Formats: sequence, C-alpha cells, structure tokens
Amino acid sequence: MIRTHDAGSLRATDAGTTVTLAGWVARRRDHGGVIFVDLRDASGVVQVVFREEDAHALRNEYCVKVVGEVTRRPEGNENPELPTGEIEVTAAELDVLSEAAPLPLPVDDQVVAGDDVRLKYRYLDLRRGGPAHAMRLRSRANQLARGVLHERDFLEIETPTLTRSTPEGARDFLVPVRLQPGSWYALPQSPQLFKQLLMVGGMERYYQIARCYRDEDFRADRQPEFTQLDIEMSFVTEDDVIDLGEEITAALWSDLAGYEIPRPIPRITWHDAMARYGSDKPDLRYGVELTELTDYLRGTQFRVFAGAIDAGGYVGAVVMPGGAGQTRKELDGWQDWAKARGARGLAYVVLDAETGEPRGPVAKNLSAEHLAGLADAVGAKPGDAVFFAAGPEARGAQELLGAARIEIAKRAGLVDEGAWAFCWVVDAPMFERMSDESGAAGGWTAVHHPFTSPNAEWMDRFEEAPDRALAYAYDIVCNGNEIGGGSVRIHRRDVQQRVFELLGITPEEAQDKFGFLLEAFSYGPPPHGGIAFGWDRVCMLLAGVDSIRDVIAFPKTRGGFDPLTGAPTPITGQQRAEAGIDAKPKPAQVPHTGTAGPAAPVADPT
Amino acid sequence: MIRTHDAGSLRATDAGTTVTLAGWVARRRDHGGVIFVDLRDASGVVQVVFREEDAHALRNEYCVKVVGEVTRRPEGNENPELPTGEIEVTAAELDVLSEAAPLPLPVDDQVVAGDDVRLKYRYLDLRRGGPAHAMRLRSRANQLARGVLHERDFLEIETPTLTRSTPEGARDFLVPVRLQPGSWYALPQSPQLFKQLLMVGGMERYYQIARCYRDEDFRADRQPEFTQLDIEMSFVTEDDVIDLGEEITAALWSDLAGYEIPRPIPRITWHDAMARYGSDKPDLRYGVELTELTDYLRGTQFRVFAGAIDAGGYVGAVVMPGGAGQTRKELDGWQDWAKARGARGLAYVVLDAETGEPRGPVAKNLSAEHLAGLADAVGAKPGDAVFFAAGPEARGAQELLGAARIEIAKRAGLVDEGAWAFCWVVDAPMFERMSDESGAAGGWTAVHHPFTSPNAEWMDRFEEAPDRALAYAYDIVCNGNEIGGGSVRIHRRDVQQRVFELLGITPEEAQDKFGFLLEAFSYGPPPHGGIAFGWDRVCMLLAGVDSIRDVIAFPKTRGGFDPLTGAPTPITGQQRAEAGIDAKPKPAQVPHTGTAGPAAPVADPT
Repeated sequence: MIRTHDAGSLRATDAGTTVTLAGWVARRRDHGGVIFVDLRDASGVVQVVFREEDAHALRNEYCVKVVGEVTRRPEGNENPELPTGEIEVTAAELDVLSEAAPLPLPVDDQVVAGDDVRLKYRYLDLRRGGPAHAMRLRSRANQLARGVLHERDFLEIETPTLTRSTPEGARDFLVPVRLQPGSWYALPQSPQLFKQLLMVGGMERYYQIARCYRDEDFRADRQPEFTQLDIEMSFVTEDDVIDLGEEITAALWSDLAGYEIPRPIPRITWHDAMARYGSDKPDLRYGVELTELTDYLRGTQFRVFAGAIDAGGYVGAVVMPGGAGQTRKELDGWQDWAKARGARGLAYVVLDAETGEPRGPVAKNLSAEHLAGLADAVGAKPGDAVFFAAGPEARGAQELLGAARIEIAKRAGLVDEGAWAFCWVVDAPMFERMSDESGAAGGWTAVHHPFTSPNAEWMDRFEEAPDRALAYAYDIVCNGNEIGGGSVRIHRRDVQQRVFELLGITPEEAQDKFGFLLEAFSYGPPPHGGIAFGWDRVCMLLAGVDSIRDVIAFPKTRGGFDPLTGAPTPITGQQRAEAGIDAKPKPAQVPHTGTAGPAAPVADPT
Repeated sequence: MIRTHDAGSLRATDAGTTVTLAGWVARRRDHGGVIFVDLRDASGVVQVVFREEDAHALRNEYCVKVVGEVTRRPEGNENPELPTGEIEVTAAELDVLSEAAPLPLPVDDQVVAGDDVRLKYRYLDLRRGGPAHAMRLRSRANQLARGVLHERDFLEIETPTLTRSTPEGARDFLVPVRLQPGSWYALPQSPQLFKQLLMVGGMERYYQIARCYRDEDFRADRQPEFTQLDIEMSFVTEDDVIDLGEEITAALWSDLAGYEIPRPIPRITWHDAMARYGSDKPDLRYGVELTELTDYLRGTQFRVFAGAIDAGGYVGAVVMPGGAGQTRKELDGWQDWAKARGARGLAYVVLDAETGEPRGPVAKNLSAEHLAGLADAVGAKPGDAVFFAAGPEARGAQELLGAARIEIAKRAGLVDEGAWAFCWVVDAPMFERMSDESGAAGGWTAVHHPFTSPNAEWMDRFEEAPDRALAYAYDIVCNGNEIGGGSVRIHRRDVQQRVFELLGITPEEAQDKFGFLLEAFSYGPPPHGGIAFGWDRVCMLLAGVDSIRDVIAFPKTRGGFDPLTGAPTPITGQQRAEAGIDAKPKPAQVPHTGTAGPAAPVADPT
C-alpha cells in the first residue's frame, strides 16, 4: 500500500509516529507560513500541517500522499467533533498523486446539487459523506443478511439472467440472440420460476441477491434494473418463512439502525389492513384508523352514500384530528387532492371546535340523527374533520380513505420520523377482478402471482368464490413501505393447472408458457415457499434517504438514462446486422414437448 | 418446518427419538412384509423401514413425509459407509407429499445421462450427489471469498448491467429501450470502467461477484453469461493486489480442496513463461520445458530453421520423454495435430533408445555437428523425441511448442491429476501487433486492456518500443488455467490518452467512447488496481469437474440454448413494436459534452 496508516484512524496514542497517508484534500486553510489541510480518505479525515511552500499549490480534491509525524495539537486547538481531533500530522513530504480541475460539484455534505449533476459526476458525489455512507451501509446489509442465511444452511445460487420471454405480466427487456437470429432472450423480472425449480431439484434452501429487470414506465422511484434478496425454502409452512424474514429484518435494523424490532412482528390480515388503514401496506407509526359507516348510514337520503349502500357497497370515514381548523382553501385543497387521485372529490364534515356541531356540505345532506351520532361513530372530537368515501366496491373507497389517512398524518404532523413500525400483512386474497377499459368486470387476476398457494381452507374450492379465496401470502411492511413479500407456492400440478384455468389461461397456453414448471411438478416436487425483499428499498429505509437512487452506485434517471455514461445509445448498422435484430425467426425450436414457458414471468410483489 | 430432523443427521445417539422426516425416495427394496426405503434430503440419506402396506405404492423420487422412531439397526446390518448407517427409522406414519412419474433421468450418481437430457431435466440432475455438491461448493466459495474481503474492509457494490454499448472489443449483448426508441443498452462485458469510477469516487476497496456478458461464438466452455469475482483497490501497488489474490485463492483451496497453497505463489514473467512453457498460462504440474535453439542452430543449412534465424526469428524445441518409442503412425499423428492447430507440421528428431543416435526427417537436414550436440542442447536422453518449431516471430513458434508440451504431458502420462500448481504470470507486455487478414503487421492492440498501466520503467516512453513495453499486469494460473487476472490501472489522463493514441484511437473517438473516464481522471483520481477471478472456472477446478456448466445452476448449451425453458424464443409483433426495436434513433442525446463512452468495453482477461 502506498500509505502506512488510514487518516481517520490516527489518535493521540499515535503521537510521535511517522506515517504515510494518502487521500484527498478536503479543505485547505492558508495561515501565512502555515497551511492546514484536511486530508480525507475512506476512513475519515485528519488535519495535516504544511510549513513548506509546495502545499500552496494544493486545491480541493487533489489526490496526495503525505509523509509526516503525528503530533498532539497545541492545547486549545483540539477538535472534539473529529475522531482525530486531538492530533495533527506535521508534513515532511508531499507528493501530488493527481490534480483536480475546478469542481463541477462541490464535495461537501452541506451543498446539495441537482440530481442530474450528481449523477453525471457520480464519482465526485460518492466522495461526499452521505452517498459514501449509503454505499457502506448497503454492503453491510448484504453481509448481515448473508450471515443470517448461511447460519441457517442456505445456499447462494445464481440463476440465469438471459432467459425466456413471456408476453404477459410486466414488460420484459429483450435481448436479440446473434447465434439464433430471430430469437430473443428476456431479462428476468425475478428468479421466481428458477428458484422453484431449485426446490424441485432438492436444493431445499436457496438465496440470491438477484438483479431483476422490469421494463416499466418509470415512476419516481423505479429503476429498470433493481435488486431483490430472493429466498426460497422447501418443507416449510408460512410461519417458517415469516420467522426467517423477521430474523433478517431484525438483524438489519439492529445493526444498521440501532433499533431492536419487537418480535414477533405483528400480523394483520389483508382484509383488516384494508378495513382499518385502507392500504395493504399500512403505515403503523400513527393511528388515524378508518371507520366503516355502511351500517350506520343505512337509510340515508344522501345520494352518494345511499347509492353505494344500495349497491351492496361501502361507506367509510377517516378523522383528521384538528381538521376543523383548516381554512376553506385548505378544505378545497382536499378536493383537488382527491381529484388528482381519480376520485370525484372527498366528502367531509367538520366538527365545530367549541360545540362539536357538524358543518360543511355533507352535513346538509345527512339526517339530524346521523349527524348526532357521527362523532361517536367515527371517534371524532370537536375540532376534528371527518372525511368520507363511498363506493359500490369497498376497495376503491378504502384506498381513497387510506391515502387520505397518510395525507392527514402528514398535514397534521402525526408522523414520528424517528419511529419504526413493522407489520406482516397476511391472508391476502388469491384473486381480484380485472376491469376492462369501460370499468366493467372482467376475468380474474392473481393478487400476488399465479404460483401462490391457496390456503388449506380454499385449496380444494377456490373456484367457488375466487373473490373470497385466501392465499398463503405475506408481505412485510415498514413505515408504510412494502419491503418484502412472498408466499407458500403451489407444488401440486393439478392445483397449478386449476389456478391457470381460473386466470383464463388455456391448457395450451399453460403448456406453452409454463410447461416446464408443470412438468417439473410431475417429479416429486416438495412443498415450498419463499420471500423476496426489495433490497433497494430496504437499504433506502435503513440509510434514511428519500430515494432508492441514493443507495444505488450508478442509478439511472427517469426514462432510464445514465447521465454519466450517456447510456442508452443508438447502435451501428453493423451491430444491428450482426445481432440478427431483423432476422426472421426460424420455425420454433422444439427441443422436447411441453417444456416451453417463461423463465420468470412474475415476481414476488416487492 | 414440516420435518423435525434432517435425515442425514441421525446417529445412534438419536435411538429412541421419534422424528418427522421429509425428503425423497432414493431407493426402495421390498422384502416381503418389510419395505426398506432410502430417504434422501439435502443433509443425506437414512434408511426407513415400513411394515405397512401403503409403502408399496412408493416409487423412486416420490416426495414423502415420514414419522417414525429412530432405532439401532440389528447387529450385523450396520452400513459403515453411510453416516447414518448405525440406525434406521421405523416408520409409523407415511404421507406422500407428491408423486413422481417415471423418471426421464435416473437420480443416481452412477448413471450419467447426456448433457441435453441433464439440462432439460436439470431439477432431477441437481438431486444427484455430484451436481448438488457442485452447487454447495460454489455457495461456500462465495462465502469464503467474501470473508477474506470483508475482513479487509472491502465494500460489496453493485454496478449497472443495463449500460452503454461500445462497438469494439468482444460483441455486446444489446437491449432495446422502449422509453427511448432507437436507443439500446448493452449488457456489460465486465464492470471494469464502473469499478475504476468507484475508485475515483473514493470507495477505495470494491468487490462484486458480478454477472458479465459476452456475445461470443460459443466454444466448448463458454457461456453467454458468466460470473467474475471482481475487485478493485486504491493506493496499491501490484504486490498488494497479488497478496490479496493469494489470500482469496489460499482460503478457497484450503477449505474446499484441502490443499494448503505454498506461499508466496511463484511468479514468472510473461516472457519467461513463453520461453520456458510456450504459454502465458503454464501448467506447472510437470516439467517438459522448451529450449531455445536459435543460437545453437545458427548457420544451419536446413531451410526451415535458417529462414527463421535469418529473419531474426526463433527456433526452439521441446522433448517428449520416451517419445522415440512412438510408432510411425503416432509420429505422423503429431503432424496432423500440428496442422489442426494451423501449423505446417511439427519437425522432430527421435533419439535411438540404445545408441542415442538422432533419426527422422529433420535429422537428415542437420549437420553432424548440430546433431551431435542436440541431445545435450535440449536435455534429451536416448529414447526421447525432440519436437521443433521455428518462425520469424518467437511467439507463434513458442505457442506451438507450448501446445505440444501439454500434449506430450498428456500422452506420456506426466500429469499428476491430484496435484495443484499455481503461479503468477507477471510483467506482461503492454501491446502486441495486430496482423491483418493477409498476415501483414497492422497496428497495436492491448494485451490486457487499454486501461492497464505501463510499469514505471515504461511509463514515460512506451511509444519508443511498444512491443517491448511492460505492464503492471498479472494473471494467476492454476494447473494451466488462467483463473484470474488484473493490473494496476492508468490513473493519469495524459497516460491514458497516450495509450489510446498508440492503439490508434483518435482523440475524437476516445472522447466519444471513453470521455467520461478521461473526465473523471481530471478530478483527483487515486492510483488503483485490481483483479478479477473467472468464478465459474475457479469453482469448476475446486469441484473437480470438467466443464463450467457443472458449476452453473442452469447453464446453456452451445449456441446459448436452454433446453429447460426453451430460451431464447421468437417474440411477438406486439413485443417488437412496444420495445421500439425498429424505431429510428432520434438525434443523439448529448446530455453534456465529453461523457460519452462505453460502460464496460473490456474485461480483466479471465
């Protein structure tokens, strides 16, 4: 090594030692004949004192080697905020390893540049404390999770990333295959089917920190490639996977957030989560629960509510503490907020802070009796606001109230930003109705994915009431973020075929797309289940940053652009020709009947 | 867990315990009223004894759950070859978890099926002892390497796999970008440039077990996606990286092969390796060194040798111990062997086993004096054969002799298959001449890659004699396999630009392709270097298998076909349209000047 010591490791006990350091000029202060330089390396910062003229040439972010003696700082000059603050290094030799041009991005934790500049000069951004910390934290998170898994005899196994395309689910990224012109690989959306095949292969305990790919329209916090901690186990029940998930989560939060998660992590059923929080990933850092009013308001003349109730639907409410104090503009703002979410508006009643008397547009439409009991029914106090939602299906109305709940917590300052609240959402439904563009009910779609096992109660009869059938599916939620999810899988060929059938997949399609899985299930498949953690999101939460981009070394902007390398780019005609992009596919290669199928069409919903 | 115990863990001390096991029927022996079943799970095998009729229905590879009592086997019935051989489990309950159809691939370590069947039914293949062991070994190898690296404060950092295409080097796999129609990502051939950028970013110590992609014509042992253990360090010399490489290698071989590698691993210069072994990855499990005869044969009338010597070239020889005993047909076979390698033939002399008299076609062409001293000059004994090669450039002739050396060792049975021989090949040349199709000398190409640093001696003057300039480049070789390689990198922008220039890359091209790297080097880049291990090959050697396919969970056949999933496949017209495959590229996005460049055009040569 060019250096003998790490800058950040020097202490008073090193005084008198001659050290060679190498790092970057973090700051330079010229005091006439003496120049003070904060020398930064990966371990930290130390003050270096130069009495020689050559140090005049130093500028920020020059990379330097310094030989000098560690000395105690003069009395009164110690810096208790710095681990090395008791000492300084008196430089005897200076070697400039490389110079730095004027910086487009200050390497400073105080100055925050725009995202585009940060990404274009990511190598400067990463020299800043925050981004460097995020990289270290993520590396440590990997190590912690692996520790838990190796202790429990899990095998780390790599699954292919050049695999088979399936024309459904989220869009696949595609890769033309030069050696088989007209044929394409797909990049996997998850290792789902491969990990199930590993279970059929008797591997019993698999994990992988796996790169996954989804060609989605980029929302704020999406990347075309992302990472999941992917896990699968044989001979397990739901509880086994949940226990393991808790072990991993507890290890991460203990080490990296200094937080001991109370165990067991509470479980809430999917239906309860929707009923109480209007979300399948409830933020439990605050209360503000929903109240169903369908029965309470039965018989109302108010058309909006009566319509929902008559249709066998749902009316519910959520209370904003102190919400009566909002200005008219603020209350109107809620209408805009609801409209932006696609709702027609957000009915409300405010309770007079003094008298508790209900007021507002909805109040005029409710009977005196309904108004009189309202505060009690929803648990509101004088000075609160009550927001309503109604609909022919509970889910839409609950989700609107759930979103309002989050907004209420934000506006009313109810979120303890330092708190951690975890829960498992269990007993998810197997299926939900798809609606076509006109909103009419269509066929069924899988809530998790089509390999999710119905629970014991529904195993033999999920077709009887697909909307009510429950799955052995579980999501782990932290502060309103789904950080992981999984399920016990179907391992019976007949059950898998019945699920495909219910989803409207014909036997021929099933054979074509998933034939290899069905075939594998013919050879003694073990019961199995697993979980996948959205690793970017887990690290984001642990690092206390707002975006997964902050825990990715070289993230892309929206639209999948990399300001650093300029990717993606056009390709040359020669590349296009060589890659066989325009080749007509040859007649399908049929290596054997019935093994065609996608490699990983669906993912654990993380 | 469905089971209470692992089958393979049961011992005599467990006698009397009631256990629940879950696994597969590995073998079933029906002894009238009693049925013996070898029950296999990931931990091993145990004998289960059934006295109930329902066990009659069991067939191989049924997945079952068994409740029973552990009992000592009757005296004389112990199986000392089995860790569980002192006991058996007397079944009280049997639960068939899933049945197995007749097997297309016997789950048996003795029976070896064809590769296509093995890959198509990889999930059955993985239940066999060998393949399962290879997966376990690989997982353990990852863990061992990570242990060494984390102890030394390395950070595991993920680099992008959807990145920028470069139209040179090996071919990139390409990915159309739907959101930027006409633009394409490339899959990285290695994380080379990203890891260098991480060093510029002050990360100092990076590693990643990285998936890499090369669209090559498939040779026997190539996969379109492969894995490397990728490492980069700042503020290091060559010795630091070599030491780390040895630590990792030693940890792997100690734990997984039971072999303590003598340290330090010997280093041989690239030129010595070529001179002595005719290879830059010499197999040191045997001697059979090459001898240069250029000086010895100076003045010969034999046209083939004289021509090479007059051209300032090379004549050399390699001795086959006992090679004089070969039949005429065997000696002719060497000619065919040489021609298959593209040589014109392989000149030889055999030394009479009794008299030592040189015979054979070449002997007739050499002078009495040259013949008389030949045995001494090449270190041959009576009964040996001497093979010659000559050429205007040493390298081609040395490589032919090097290949002959390997073939000699094989045919003469000189390879100790149980031996391990490691070396570092260091001081590699920076550049070599490219030849055009006619064989005429063309421009220069980088022997390692264009980011490799010249050594101190050549740093300021490699242009003076590019063919002699040496690099800080090092490969680690095991039994004739290059298992890893790396270099100290260039970190000075001016040096990098000079290398590009020598390689015939114009400043404009350099700016276009590598501009972002050159720009990064303007901001205080640290000296840095690294190494990458060909992880598939490392695991292959450790597992003692012949192909990297045996250490990959779901490998592809030649041509990149996956017999299990049927990938790759044609895509639908809708997929094609959506992915924007046929879109005309928009005018190039120029987010800022000078940052265009490939993300990872070249790899450590593993």
